[in-house]
Amino acid sequence: MGRLAVIAGGGTLPVRIMHANPGALFVAVGGTDCQPPDGAEVLPATFERIGTLFKGMHAAGVTDVVFAGGLVRPRLNPLKFDSRTVALAPRLMHAMKQGDDTLLRAVVAAFESGGFTVRGATEVADGLTAPAGPLVGPAPGKTDLADIGRAAAILSALGPLDVGQGAVVAQGLVLGIETAQGTDAMLGFVADTRGRFRREGGVLLKAPKPGQDLRIDMPAIGPGTIEAAHRAGLNGIAFGAGRTLLLDRDEMSATARRTGLFLYGHEV
Amino acid sequence: MGRLAVIAGGGTLPVRIMHANPGALFVAVGGTDCQPPDGAEVLPATFERIGTLFKGMHAAGVTDVVFAGGLVRPRLNPLKFDSRTVALAPRLMHAMKQGDDTLLRAVVAAFESGGFTVRGATEVADGLTAPAGPLVGPAPGKTDLADIGRAAAILSALGPLDVGQGAVVAQGLVLGIETAQGTDAMLGFVADTRGRFRREGGVLLKAPKPGQDLRIDMPAIGPGTIEAAHRAGLNGIAFGAGRTLLLDRDEMSATARRTGLFLYGHEV
Repeated sequence: MGRLAVIAGGGTLPVRIMHANPGALFVAVGGTDCQPPDGAEVLPATFERIGTLFKGMHAAGVTDVVFAGGLVRPRLNPLKFDSRTVALAPRLMHAMKQGDDTLLRAVVAAFESGGFTVRGATEVADGLTAPAGPLVGPAPGKTDLADIGRAAAILSALGPLDVGQGAVVAQGLVLGIETAQGTDAMLGFVADTRGRFRREGGVLLKAPKPGQDLRIDMPAIGPGTIEAAHRAGLNGIAFGAGRTLLLDRDEMSATARRTGLFLYGHEV
Repeated sequence: MGRLAVIAGGGTLPVRIMHANPGALFVAVGGTDCQPPDGAEVLPATFERIGTLFKGMHAAGVTDVVFAGGLVRPRLNPLKFDSRTVALAPRLMHAMKQGDDTLLRAVVAAFESGGFTVRGATEVADGLTAPAGPLVGPAPGKTDLADIGRAAAILSALGPLDVGQGAVVAQGLVLGIETAQGTDAMLGFVADTRGRFRREGGVLLKAPKPGQDLRIDMPAIGPGTIEAAHRAGLNGIAFGAGRTLLLDRDEMSATARRTGLFLYGHEV
Protein backbone atom coordinates (compact mmCIF):
# COMPACT_ATOMS: atom_id res chain seq x y z
CA MET A 1 0.00 0.00 0.00
CA GLY A 2 1.29 3.43 -0.97
CA ARG A 3 -0.05 6.66 0.46
CA LEU A 4 -3.51 6.59 1.99
CA ALA A 5 -6.17 9.27 1.59
CA VAL A 6 -8.87 9.53 4.25
CA ILE A 7 -12.13 10.75 2.70
CA ALA A 8 -13.48 12.53 5.76
CA GLY A 9 -17.24 12.34 6.25
CA GLY A 10 -18.11 13.27 9.83
CA GLY A 11 -17.51 12.33 13.44
CA THR A 12 -14.25 11.20 15.00
CA LEU A 13 -13.41 8.20 12.79
CA PRO A 14 -11.45 10.16 10.16
CA VAL A 15 -9.11 11.60 12.81
CA ARG A 16 -8.77 8.18 14.42
CA ILE A 17 -7.69 6.71 11.08
CA MET A 18 -5.31 9.64 10.44
CA HIS A 19 -3.58 8.91 13.75
CA ALA A 20 -3.23 5.24 12.79
CA ASN A 21 -1.74 6.19 9.40
CA PRO A 22 0.93 8.89 9.78
CA GLY A 23 1.43 10.80 6.55
CA ALA A 24 -2.04 10.06 5.20
CA LEU A 25 -3.78 12.74 3.15
CA PHE A 26 -6.90 14.24 4.74
CA VAL A 27 -9.56 14.84 2.08
CA ALA A 28 -12.02 17.38 3.46
CA VAL A 29 -15.19 16.87 1.47
CA GLY A 30 -17.37 19.97 1.27
CA GLY A 31 -19.63 20.24 4.26
CA THR A 32 -17.72 17.92 6.58
CA ASP A 33 -17.58 18.91 10.25
CA CYS A 34 -14.29 17.04 10.71
CA GLN A 35 -11.22 18.97 11.73
CA PRO A 36 -7.98 17.49 10.39
CA PRO A 37 -5.34 16.63 12.98
CA ASP A 38 -2.51 19.15 13.45
CA GLY A 39 0.15 18.93 10.76
CA ALA A 40 -1.90 16.82 8.38
CA GLU A 41 -1.83 17.62 4.69
CA VAL A 42 -5.36 18.59 3.70
CA LEU A 43 -6.98 18.40 0.28
CA PRO A 44 -10.30 20.26 0.13
CA ALA A 45 -12.72 18.52 -2.22
CA THR A 46 -16.27 18.30 -3.46
CA PHE A 47 -18.12 15.44 -5.13
CA GLU A 48 -19.15 17.94 -7.77
CA ARG A 49 -15.55 17.92 -9.03
CA ILE A 50 -14.46 14.30 -8.88
CA GLY A 51 -11.94 14.80 -11.69
CA THR A 52 -10.24 17.56 -9.71
CA LEU A 53 -10.28 15.36 -6.58
CA PHE A 54 -8.69 12.42 -8.42
CA LYS A 55 -5.98 14.66 -9.93
CA GLY A 56 -5.23 16.19 -6.54
CA MET A 57 -4.92 12.75 -4.93
CA HIS A 58 -2.68 11.42 -7.71
CA ALA A 59 -0.48 14.52 -7.44
CA ALA A 60 -0.18 13.88 -3.69
CA GLY A 61 1.00 10.31 -4.34
CA VAL A 62 -2.20 8.67 -3.10
CA THR A 63 -2.73 5.02 -4.10
CA ASP A 64 -5.34 3.92 -1.54
CA VAL A 65 -8.45 5.58 -0.14
CA VAL A 66 -10.66 4.94 2.86
CA PHE A 67 -14.10 6.44 3.37
CA ALA A 68 -14.50 7.38 7.00
CA GLY A 69 -17.36 8.80 8.98
CA GLY A 70 -20.45 8.25 6.94
CA LEU A 71 -20.99 9.25 3.37
CA VAL A 72 -24.32 11.06 3.41
CA ARG A 73 -26.13 11.48 0.15
CA PRO A 74 -24.73 14.87 -0.82
CA ARG A 75 -26.87 17.61 -2.31
CA LEU A 76 -24.98 18.45 -5.47
CA ASN A 77 -25.23 21.37 -7.82
CA PRO A 78 -24.96 19.98 -11.38
CA LEU A 79 -23.81 23.39 -12.65
CA LYS A 80 -20.56 22.87 -10.74
CA PHE A 81 -19.80 19.38 -12.11
CA ASP A 82 -16.44 18.86 -13.77
CA SER A 83 -16.20 16.57 -16.80
CA ARG A 84 -15.44 13.44 -14.78
CA THR A 85 -18.47 14.00 -12.53
CA VAL A 86 -20.60 14.62 -15.62
CA ALA A 87 -19.35 11.32 -17.07
CA LEU A 88 -20.11 9.45 -13.81
CA ALA A 89 -23.42 11.18 -13.18
CA PRO A 90 -25.76 8.92 -15.17
CA ARG A 91 -24.43 5.79 -13.47
CA LEU A 92 -24.56 7.36 -9.99
CA MET A 93 -28.04 8.79 -10.54
CA HIS A 94 -29.29 5.41 -11.71
CA ALA A 95 -27.64 3.67 -8.76
CA MET A 96 -29.14 6.19 -6.35
CA LYS A 97 -32.58 4.89 -7.24
CA GLN A 98 -31.67 1.26 -6.55
CA GLY A 99 -30.79 1.63 -2.87
CA ASP A 100 -27.75 2.40 -0.76
CA ASP A 101 -25.78 -0.71 -1.63
CA THR A 102 -25.97 -0.08 -5.34
CA LEU A 103 -25.02 3.57 -4.92
CA LEU A 104 -22.06 2.78 -2.72
CA ARG A 105 -20.88 0.05 -5.07
CA ALA A 106 -21.00 2.64 -7.87
CA VAL A 107 -18.95 5.08 -5.76
CA VAL A 108 -16.36 2.36 -5.06
CA ALA A 109 -16.27 1.51 -8.78
CA ALA A 110 -15.74 5.19 -9.63
CA PHE A 111 -12.73 5.47 -7.31
CA GLU A 112 -11.34 2.17 -8.63
CA SER A 113 -11.73 3.38 -12.20
CA GLY A 114 -9.71 6.43 -11.09
CA GLY A 115 -6.84 4.11 -10.20
CA PHE A 116 -7.31 3.95 -6.43
CA THR A 117 -7.65 0.93 -4.16
CA VAL A 118 -10.60 1.33 -1.80
CA ARG A 119 -9.85 0.09 1.73
CA GLY A 120 -12.22 -0.56 4.61
CA ALA A 121 -11.65 1.34 7.86
CA THR A 122 -10.88 -1.94 9.62
CA GLU A 123 -8.05 -2.60 7.15
CA VAL A 124 -6.23 0.58 8.12
CA ALA A 125 -6.92 0.91 11.86
CA ASP A 126 -7.09 -1.60 14.71
CA GLY A 127 -9.68 -1.98 17.42
CA LEU A 128 -12.65 -0.69 15.45
CA THR A 129 -14.71 -3.86 15.87
CA ALA A 130 -15.16 -6.47 18.60
CA PRO A 131 -15.56 -10.26 18.56
CA ALA A 132 -18.57 -12.36 19.55
CA GLY A 133 -19.66 -12.35 23.18
CA PRO A 134 -20.28 -9.80 25.94
CA LEU A 135 -18.24 -6.61 25.48
CA VAL A 136 -19.60 -4.28 28.16
CA GLY A 137 -22.10 -4.75 30.96
CA PRO A 138 -24.15 -7.78 31.96
CA ALA A 139 -24.49 -10.72 29.58
CA PRO A 140 -27.82 -10.67 27.71
CA GLY A 141 -30.50 -12.77 29.39
CA LYS A 142 -32.54 -15.55 27.81
CA THR A 143 -35.25 -13.14 26.61
CA ASP A 144 -32.62 -10.74 25.26
CA LEU A 145 -30.96 -13.56 23.29
CA ALA A 146 -34.34 -14.57 21.86
CA ASP A 147 -34.98 -10.93 20.89
CA ILE A 148 -31.54 -10.75 19.24
CA GLY A 149 -32.39 -13.91 17.30
CA ARG A 150 -35.69 -12.47 16.12
CA ALA A 151 -34.01 -9.22 15.08
CA ALA A 152 -31.34 -11.22 13.22
CA ALA A 153 -34.05 -13.14 11.33
CA ILE A 154 -35.61 -9.84 10.26
CA LEU A 155 -32.33 -8.40 9.04
CA SER A 156 -31.56 -11.63 7.16
CA ALA A 157 -34.95 -11.55 5.46
CA LEU A 158 -34.53 -7.92 4.40
CA GLY A 159 -30.85 -8.04 3.46
CA PRO A 160 -31.34 -9.25 -0.12
CA LEU A 161 -33.63 -6.24 -0.65
CA ASP A 162 -30.89 -3.82 0.43
CA VAL A 163 -32.90 -2.63 3.44
CA GLY A 164 -32.26 -2.80 7.14
CA GLN A 165 -29.07 -2.58 9.15
CA GLY A 166 -30.94 -2.54 12.42
CA ALA A 167 -34.03 -3.74 14.25
CA VAL A 168 -35.51 -3.39 17.74
CA VAL A 169 -37.34 -6.29 19.39
CA ALA A 170 -38.76 -6.37 22.93
CA GLN A 171 -40.00 -9.67 24.35
CA GLY A 172 -40.73 -10.93 20.85
CA LEU A 173 -42.55 -7.79 19.75
CA VAL A 174 -40.95 -6.00 16.80
CA LEU A 175 -40.88 -2.26 17.62
CA GLY A 176 -38.55 -0.90 14.95
CA ILE A 177 -37.00 -1.79 11.61
CA GLU A 178 -34.32 0.58 10.36
CA THR A 179 -35.07 2.42 7.14
CA ALA A 180 -33.19 5.13 5.23
CA GLN A 181 -33.48 7.59 8.15
CA GLY A 182 -31.01 5.55 10.19
CA THR A 183 -30.63 4.05 13.63
CA ASP A 184 -31.10 7.14 15.78
CA ALA A 185 -34.37 8.04 14.03
CA MET A 186 -35.62 4.48 14.57
CA LEU A 187 -34.69 4.57 18.26
CA GLY A 188 -36.46 7.94 18.64
CA PHE A 189 -39.56 6.38 17.09
CA VAL A 190 -39.39 3.45 19.51
CA ALA A 191 -38.98 5.81 22.47
CA ASP A 192 -42.01 7.83 21.37
CA THR A 193 -44.35 4.95 20.55
CA ARG A 194 -43.69 1.94 22.77
CA GLY A 195 -45.68 3.24 25.73
CA ARG A 196 -48.90 1.44 24.83
CA PHE A 197 -47.22 -1.97 24.96
CA ARG A 198 -46.52 -3.74 28.19
CA ARG A 199 -43.13 -5.00 27.05
CA GLU A 200 -40.14 -3.98 29.09
CA GLY A 201 -36.58 -3.85 27.81
CA GLY A 202 -35.73 -5.13 24.40
CA VAL A 203 -32.63 -5.02 22.24
CA LEU A 204 -31.24 -3.22 19.24
CA LEU A 205 -29.37 -5.38 16.76
CA LYS A 206 -27.02 -3.62 14.34
CA ALA A 207 -25.45 -5.85 11.73
CA PRO A 208 -24.46 -5.65 8.08
CA LYS A 209 -26.67 -6.89 5.32
CA PRO A 210 -25.51 -10.09 3.61
CA GLY A 211 -23.27 -9.09 0.70
CA GLN A 212 -22.89 -5.52 1.97
CA ASP A 213 -19.56 -3.93 0.97
CA LEU A 214 -17.98 -3.46 4.38
CA ARG A 215 -15.21 -1.32 2.91
CA ILE A 216 -17.56 1.59 2.47
CA ASP A 217 -20.73 0.91 4.42
CA MET A 218 -20.05 -0.97 7.64
CA PRO A 219 -22.75 -0.51 10.25
CA ALA A 220 -21.59 1.63 13.15
CA ILE A 221 -22.55 2.33 16.74
CA GLY A 222 -21.23 5.00 19.06
CA PRO A 223 -22.02 6.80 22.32
CA GLY A 224 -25.04 8.49 20.72
CA THR A 225 -26.45 5.08 19.83
CA ILE A 226 -26.20 3.99 23.47
CA GLU A 227 -27.91 7.15 24.66
CA ALA A 228 -30.71 6.74 22.11
CA ALA A 229 -31.13 3.05 23.01
CA HIS A 230 -31.29 4.01 26.67
CA ARG A 231 -33.99 6.63 25.97
CA ALA A 232 -35.88 3.91 24.05
CA GLY A 233 -35.91 1.77 27.20
CA LEU A 234 -33.76 -1.03 25.80
CA ASN A 235 -31.68 -3.51 27.82
CA GLY A 236 -28.77 -3.45 25.43
CA ILE A 237 -27.29 -3.45 21.97
CA ALA A 238 -26.08 -6.42 19.98
CA PHE A 239 -23.74 -5.79 17.06
CA GLY A 240 -22.46 -7.98 14.26
CA ALA A 241 -19.24 -9.44 15.70
CA GLY A 242 -16.22 -8.21 13.73
CA ARG A 243 -18.51 -6.50 11.24
CA THR A 244 -19.76 -3.36 13.01
CA LEU A 245 -17.72 -0.22 13.70
CA LEU A 246 -17.49 0.74 17.36
CA LEU A 247 -16.93 4.48 17.34
CA ASP A 248 -15.42 6.46 20.23
CA ARG A 249 -15.00 3.19 22.03
CA ASP A 250 -13.93 4.49 25.44
CA GLU A 251 -16.76 6.99 25.63
CA MET A 252 -19.18 4.37 24.32
CA SER A 253 -18.15 1.87 26.98
CA ALA A 254 -18.46 4.53 29.67
CA THR A 255 -21.92 5.48 28.42
CA ALA A 256 -22.99 1.83 28.42
CA ARG A 257 -21.76 1.37 31.99
CA ARG A 258 -23.47 4.56 33.16
CA THR A 259 -26.82 3.63 31.56
CA GLY A 260 -26.56 -0.07 32.45
CA LEU A 261 -26.95 -1.25 28.86
CA PHE A 262 -25.10 -4.30 27.61
CA LEU A 263 -23.00 -4.36 24.44
CA TYR A 264 -22.83 -7.81 22.92
CA GLY A 265 -21.11 -9.19 19.84
CA HIS A 266 -23.57 -11.34 17.90
CA GLU A 267 -22.08 -13.94 15.56
CA VAL A 268 -23.31 -13.14 12.05
CA MET B 1 -75.35 -19.82 9.51
CA GLY B 2 -77.41 -19.28 12.65
CA ARG B 3 -77.35 -16.11 14.67
CA LEU B 4 -74.30 -13.88 14.33
CA ALA B 5 -72.52 -12.09 17.17
CA VAL B 6 -70.47 -9.00 16.34
CA ILE B 7 -67.54 -8.69 18.74
CA ALA B 8 -67.25 -4.91 18.68
CA GLY B 9 -63.72 -3.53 18.88
CA GLY B 10 -63.73 0.10 17.76
CA GLY B 11 -64.58 2.41 14.88
CA THR B 12 -67.53 2.15 12.55
CA LEU B 13 -67.11 -1.40 11.22
CA PRO B 14 -69.14 -3.13 13.97
CA VAL B 15 -72.19 -0.95 13.26
CA ARG B 16 -71.74 -1.43 9.53
CA ILE B 17 -71.81 -5.21 10.03
CA MET B 18 -74.82 -4.96 12.39
CA HIS B 19 -76.75 -3.13 9.65
CA ALA B 20 -75.84 -5.86 7.15
CA ASN B 21 -77.01 -8.57 9.57
CA PRO B 22 -80.39 -7.69 11.12
CA GLY B 23 -80.91 -9.52 14.39
CA ALA B 24 -77.22 -9.97 15.11
CA LEU B 25 -76.05 -9.77 18.72
CA PHE B 26 -73.81 -6.79 19.56
CA VAL B 27 -71.08 -7.89 21.97
CA ALA B 28 -69.74 -4.76 23.66
CA VAL B 29 -66.28 -5.70 24.88
CA GLY B 30 -65.11 -3.69 27.87
CA GLY B 31 -63.53 -0.44 26.80
CA THR B 32 -65.01 -0.28 23.29
CA ASP B 33 -66.01 3.15 22.03
CA CYS B 34 -68.61 1.62 19.71
CA GLN B 35 -72.24 2.52 20.19
CA PRO B 36 -74.64 -0.28 19.21
CA PRO B 37 -77.27 0.64 16.63
CA ASP B 38 -80.77 1.46 17.95
CA GLY B 39 -82.79 -1.62 18.81
CA ALA B 40 -79.83 -4.02 18.79
CA GLU B 41 -79.59 -6.63 21.50
CA VAL B 42 -76.40 -5.92 23.42
CA LEU B 43 -74.27 -8.31 25.45
CA PRO B 44 -71.68 -6.53 27.60
CA ALA B 45 -68.53 -8.61 27.91
CA THR B 46 -64.92 -8.68 28.99
CA PHE B 47 -62.08 -10.94 27.89
CA GLU B 48 -61.42 -11.53 31.58
CA ARG B 49 -64.62 -13.61 31.69
CA ILE B 50 -64.60 -15.62 28.49
CA GLY B 51 -66.69 -18.41 30.07
CA THR B 52 -69.42 -15.90 30.91
CA LEU B 53 -69.19 -14.45 27.38
CA PHE B 54 -69.55 -17.90 25.77
CA LYS B 55 -72.53 -18.79 28.00
CA GLY B 56 -74.20 -15.48 27.18
CA MET B 57 -73.73 -16.01 23.46
CA HIS B 58 -75.02 -19.59 23.57
CA ALA B 59 -78.06 -18.46 25.58
CA ALA B 60 -78.74 -15.82 22.90
CA GLY B 61 -78.67 -18.47 20.17
CA VAL B 62 -75.37 -17.37 18.66
CA THR B 63 -73.62 -19.85 16.34
CA ASP B 64 -71.24 -17.57 14.45
CA VAL B 65 -69.03 -14.68 15.52
CA VAL B 66 -67.21 -11.93 13.69
CA PHE B 67 -64.49 -9.75 15.18
CA ALA B 68 -64.94 -6.20 13.98
CA GLY B 69 -62.97 -3.06 14.48
CA GLY B 70 -59.57 -4.09 15.69
CA LEU B 71 -58.81 -6.33 18.58
CA VAL B 72 -56.24 -4.39 20.55
CA ARG B 73 -54.14 -6.27 23.04
CA PRO B 74 -56.32 -5.76 26.10
CA ARG B 75 -54.86 -4.99 29.50
CA LEU B 76 -56.43 -7.67 31.63
CA ASN B 77 -56.69 -8.02 35.37
CA PRO B 78 -55.99 -11.71 36.19
CA LEU B 79 -57.89 -11.35 39.48
CA LYS B 80 -61.09 -11.02 37.46
CA PHE B 81 -60.55 -14.12 35.30
CA ASP B 82 -63.32 -16.72 35.25
CA SER B 83 -62.39 -20.39 35.06
CA ARG B 84 -62.50 -20.56 31.25
CA THR B 85 -60.15 -17.58 30.95
CA VAL B 86 -57.86 -19.14 33.53
CA ALA B 87 -57.82 -22.34 31.47
CA LEU B 88 -57.06 -20.44 28.26
CA ALA B 89 -54.54 -18.07 29.83
CA PRO B 90 -51.35 -20.14 29.50
CA ARG B 91 -51.95 -20.73 25.78
CA LEU B 92 -52.81 -17.07 25.13
CA MET B 93 -49.88 -15.77 27.17
CA HIS B 94 -47.51 -18.08 25.29
CA ALA B 95 -49.01 -17.04 21.96
CA MET B 96 -48.70 -13.37 22.89
CA LYS B 97 -44.93 -13.75 22.89
CA GLN B 98 -44.83 -15.29 19.40
CA GLY B 99 -46.33 -12.38 17.50
CA ASP B 100 -49.73 -11.14 16.46
CA ASP B 101 -50.54 -14.00 14.09
CA THR B 102 -50.00 -16.64 16.73
CA LEU B 103 -52.03 -14.74 19.29
CA LEU B 104 -54.93 -14.21 16.94
CA ARG B 105 -54.87 -17.84 15.85
CA ALA B 106 -55.10 -18.78 19.52
CA VAL B 107 -58.08 -16.43 19.99
CA VAL B 108 -59.83 -18.00 16.97
CA ALA B 109 -59.09 -21.46 18.34
CA ALA B 110 -60.55 -20.47 21.72
CA PHE B 111 -63.82 -19.32 20.16
CA GLU B 112 -63.97 -22.44 17.98
CA SER B 113 -63.41 -24.63 21.05
CA GLY B 114 -66.39 -22.78 22.58
CA GLY B 115 -68.55 -24.07 19.72
CA PHE B 116 -68.63 -20.95 17.54
CA THR B 117 -67.76 -20.53 13.87
CA VAL B 118 -65.47 -17.55 13.36
CA ARG B 119 -66.35 -15.52 10.25
CA GLY B 120 -64.38 -12.82 8.51
CA ALA B 121 -65.98 -9.39 8.14
CA THR B 122 -65.99 -9.82 4.35
CA GLU B 123 -68.09 -13.00 4.73
CA VAL B 124 -70.91 -11.15 6.48
CA ALA B 125 -70.93 -7.71 4.77
CA ASP B 126 -70.46 -6.61 1.16
CA GLY B 127 -68.29 -3.86 -0.23
CA LEU B 128 -65.57 -3.95 2.41
CA THR B 129 -62.77 -4.62 -0.07
CA ALA B 130 -61.99 -3.59 -3.65
CA PRO B 131 -60.51 -5.42 -6.63
CA ALA B 132 -57.20 -4.79 -8.39
CA GLY B 133 -56.74 -1.52 -10.24
CA PRO B 134 -57.34 2.18 -9.63
CA LEU B 135 -60.14 2.83 -7.10
CA VAL B 136 -59.95 6.59 -6.49
CA GLY B 137 -57.88 9.35 -8.07
CA PRO B 138 -55.23 9.23 -10.74
CA ALA B 139 -53.68 5.91 -11.74
CA PRO B 140 -50.26 5.40 -10.12
CA GLY B 141 -47.38 6.49 -12.35
CA LYS B 142 -44.40 4.39 -13.37
CA THR B 143 -42.37 5.43 -10.32
CA ASP B 144 -45.33 4.78 -8.04
CA LEU B 145 -45.76 1.28 -9.47
CA ALA B 146 -42.05 0.57 -8.96
CA ASP B 147 -42.37 1.81 -5.36
CA ILE B 148 -45.40 -0.44 -4.83
CA GLY B 149 -43.38 -3.37 -6.18
CA ARG B 150 -40.49 -2.64 -3.82
CA ALA B 151 -42.87 -2.34 -0.86
CA ALA B 152 -44.50 -5.63 -1.86
CA ALA B 153 -41.10 -7.34 -1.94
CA ILE B 154 -40.41 -6.09 1.59
CA LEU B 155 -43.75 -7.32 2.93
CA SER B 156 -43.24 -10.71 1.23
CA ALA B 157 -39.81 -11.07 2.79
CA LEU B 158 -41.08 -10.21 6.27
CA GLY B 159 -44.37 -12.11 6.12
CA PRO B 160 -43.01 -15.49 7.21
CA LEU B 161 -41.64 -13.73 10.32
CA ASP B 162 -45.09 -12.43 11.27
CA VAL B 163 -44.01 -8.81 10.85
CA GLY B 164 -45.17 -6.06 8.54
CA GLN B 165 -48.55 -5.25 7.08
CA GLY B 166 -47.30 -2.01 5.57
CA ALA B 167 -44.32 -0.23 4.05
CA VAL B 168 -43.58 3.21 2.61
CA VAL B 169 -41.27 3.62 -0.38
CA ALA B 170 -40.47 6.87 -2.20
CA GLN B 171 -38.55 6.72 -5.49
CA GLY B 172 -36.95 3.46 -4.43
CA LEU B 173 -35.98 4.68 -0.97
CA VAL B 174 -37.54 2.72 1.89
CA LEU B 175 -38.82 5.24 4.44
CA GLY B 176 -41.01 3.09 6.68
CA ILE B 177 -41.68 -0.52 7.58
CA GLU B 178 -44.69 -1.12 9.79
CA THR B 179 -44.03 -2.61 13.21
CA ALA B 180 -46.30 -3.33 16.17
CA GLN B 181 -47.19 0.36 16.59
CA GLY B 182 -49.25 0.26 13.40
CA THR B 183 -49.72 2.19 10.19
CA ASP B 184 -50.51 5.63 11.58
CA ALA B 185 -47.42 5.62 13.80
CA MET B 186 -45.28 4.63 10.80
CA LEU B 187 -46.77 7.41 8.67
CA GLY B 188 -46.15 9.92 11.45
CA PHE B 189 -42.52 8.78 11.56
CA VAL B 190 -42.21 9.23 7.79
CA ALA B 191 -43.75 12.71 7.99
CA ASP B 192 -41.30 13.71 10.73
CA THR B 193 -38.13 12.28 9.21
CA ARG B 194 -38.23 12.37 5.42
CA GLY B 195 -37.18 16.03 5.13
CA ARG B 196 -33.48 15.31 4.67
CA PHE B 197 -34.10 13.22 1.57
CA ARG B 198 -34.76 14.75 -1.79
CA ARG B 199 -37.40 12.18 -2.69
CA GLU B 200 -40.83 13.51 -3.49
CA GLY B 201 -44.03 11.49 -3.24
CA GLY B 202 -43.91 7.81 -2.49
CA VAL B 203 -46.53 5.21 -1.68
CA LEU B 204 -47.89 3.27 1.25
CA LEU B 205 -48.64 -0.38 0.57
CA LYS B 206 -50.99 -2.15 3.00
CA ALA B 207 -51.40 -5.86 2.40
CA PRO B 208 -51.84 -9.01 4.44
CA LYS B 209 -48.94 -11.24 5.36
CA PRO B 210 -48.85 -14.59 3.53
CA GLY B 211 -50.80 -17.10 5.62
CA GLN B 212 -52.41 -14.37 7.73
CA ASP B 213 -55.86 -15.34 9.04
CA LEU B 214 -58.02 -12.80 7.25
CA ARG B 215 -61.05 -13.71 9.36
CA ILE B 216 -59.63 -11.91 12.33
CA ASP B 217 -56.72 -9.77 11.22
CA MET B 218 -57.31 -8.30 7.78
CA PRO B 219 -55.29 -5.15 7.12
CA ALA B 220 -57.48 -2.06 7.05
CA ILE B 221 -57.32 1.49 5.75
CA GLY B 222 -59.71 4.35 6.41
CA PRO B 223 -60.02 8.13 6.18
CA GLY B 224 -57.41 8.57 8.93
CA THR B 225 -54.93 6.53 6.88
CA ILE B 226 -55.42 8.87 3.91
CA GLU B 227 -54.91 11.94 6.10
CA ALA B 228 -51.76 10.47 7.63
CA ALA B 229 -50.42 9.45 4.20
CA HIS B 230 -51.12 12.97 2.95
CA ARG B 231 -49.24 14.49 5.89
CA ALA B 232 -46.36 12.12 5.07
CA GLY B 233 -46.20 13.61 1.57
CA LEU B 234 -47.19 10.42 -0.26
CA ASN B 235 -48.73 10.22 -3.74
CA GLY B 236 -51.12 7.46 -2.81
CA ILE B 237 -51.98 4.22 -1.10
CA ALA B 238 -51.93 0.74 -2.60
CA PHE B 239 -53.86 -1.99 -0.83
CA GLY B 240 -53.99 -5.75 -1.24
CA ALA B 241 -56.82 -6.25 -3.73
CA GLY B 242 -59.73 -8.11 -2.13
CA ARG B 243 -57.68 -8.59 1.02
CA THR B 244 -57.70 -5.22 2.78
CA LEU B 245 -60.67 -3.67 4.60
CA LEU B 246 -61.73 -0.28 3.30
CA LEU B 247 -63.36 1.42 6.27
CA ASP B 248 -65.81 4.33 6.01
CA ARG B 249 -65.52 4.02 2.29
CA ASP B 250 -67.43 7.14 1.26
CA GLU B 251 -65.54 9.38 3.63
CA MET B 252 -62.29 7.70 2.63
CA SER B 253 -62.93 8.31 -1.06
CA ALA B 254 -63.85 11.94 -0.36
CA THR B 255 -60.66 12.40 1.67
CA ALA B 256 -58.57 10.87 -1.13
CA ARG B 257 -60.16 13.19 -3.70
CA ARG B 258 -59.65 16.25 -1.49
CA THR B 259 -55.99 15.44 -0.82
CA GLY B 260 -55.28 14.24 -4.36
CA LEU B 261 -54.02 10.83 -3.25
CA PHE B 262 -54.67 7.73 -5.32
CA LEU B 263 -56.14 4.51 -3.93
CA TYR B 264 -55.04 1.49 -5.90
CA GLY B 265 -55.79 -2.20 -5.56
CA HIS B 266 -52.55 -4.17 -5.84
CA GLU B 267 -52.82 -7.82 -6.87
CA VAL B 268 -51.33 -9.90 -4.06
